[in-house]
Amino acid sequence: MSVIGKPVLYSYWRSSCSWRVRIALNLKEIPYDIKPISLIKAGGEQHCNEFREINPMEQVPALYIDGHTLVESLNIMHYLEETRPQRPLMPQDVIKRAKVREICEVIASGIQPLQNLIVLIYVGEEKKKEWAQHWINRGFHAVEKLLSTSAGKYCVGDEISIADCCLIPQVFNARRFHVDLRPFPTILRIDRELENHPAFRAAHPSNQPDCPPEATK
Amino acid sequence: MSVIGKPVLYSYWRSSCSWRVRIALNLKEIPYDIKPISLIKAGGEQHCNEFREINPMEQVPALYIDGHTLVESLNIMHYLEETRPQRPLMPQDVIKRAKVREICEVIASGIQPLQNLIVLIYVGEEKKKEWAQHWINRGFHAVEKLLSTSAGKYCVGDEISIADCCLIPQVFNARRFHVDLRPFPTILRIDRELENHPAFRAAHPSNQPDCPPEATK
Repeated sequence: MSVIGKPVLYSYWRSSCSWRVRIALNLKEIPYDIKPISLIKAGGEQHCNEFREINPMEQVPALYIDGHTLVESLNIMHYLEETRPQRPLMPQDVIKRAKVREICEVIASGIQPLQNLIVLIYVGEEKKKEWAQHWINRGFHAVEKLLSTSAGKYCVGDEISIADCCLIPQVFNARRFHVDLRPFPTILRIDRELENHPAFRAAHPSNQPDCPPEATK
Repeated sequence: MSVIGKPVLYSYWRSSCSWRVRIALNLKEIPYDIKPISLIKAGGEQHCNEFREINPMEQVPALYIDGHTLVESLNIMHYLEETRPQRPLMPQDVIKRAKVREICEVIASGIQPLQNLIVLIYVGEEKKKEWAQHWINRGFHAVEKLLSTSAGKYCVGDEISIADCCLIPQVFNARRFHVDLRPFPTILRIDRELENHPAFRAAHPSNQPDCPPEATK
């Protein structure tokens, strides 16, 4: 495959979907540059005409790679897996692959879209915390149940997969919204297992070039 | 592979996510039985203890196949593709595959979860129509833009893919919420192209065993 320059990730430090892709790139040891897109500056740089050409959904992440710009975090991770199979992030076994995708979809379709910044703005300041807690709680109950049969050391067995790339950023979001995580012991155990993994650590919001200094205190 | 009986699809006639899987099963000519789960009877059969064991997210579809129960419609379609590659629903080319997944994810993460029955109940009767229209409009603008470079006869080129399995049910939902579809000519063209395709027709809500007679009028 002809590779046209280093991949460029359009990312925002606190975006959980950008974070998923940062973890996957780090785990696969793919060098990349970050182009920060501020979701809050001037009403959101993701809404400017230039970025709308990159992602018509006006959200991060987007990844420029192999001469193409890809959007949607799960899609990007699967593309990386299909084109860079080294350090695999998907199991070989078809049932285990299904288990990985189930956890990913519950988070990516069942939780994250409902506590996304743009939805919370629409819900309004007064109700947003309770709204976010409600959907994270509901989704985490399902994830915890799925993990009860799939998890080993990580979400599915003892190998890190894209399910873990989705879970860890969602746990961070849950804490931001003060969700009580005690009912989810398996989620908490996997989060502890991965919090100091170098690929996860380097992808953490607090280690991003666009993280404001006051947020790291 | 040992196949344990005929697959059983837990489905609700009007659920767009069940509909996606019905189309995929039909296109691949996989015989299956339907077990209807009423999302409205007695507060929703998906919330009963028996079904919560099948899908902890308490939603349809779920597919019992090959001795396992799988949940999440995109996951199920990819599982079918991986285990029954005949009549493929994914292109071979990695960029085209990414285009298919982008359209699927915009619909499955960016539109459907926000106009899901359970979310609309939470939003409330008074605001639900405007809420659903808002998110469908936003997502369809992005889908139309993605289709402008990917579409041939169908969503990606001239072969039917899982992107089409996601798009057609979402168009139906858009009409239910009286979304003005005139700004989306490519979406409308693909919808017209597929409305009379036998696999899509057989999967239509009005052709389901649990469709109430008054809804087919």
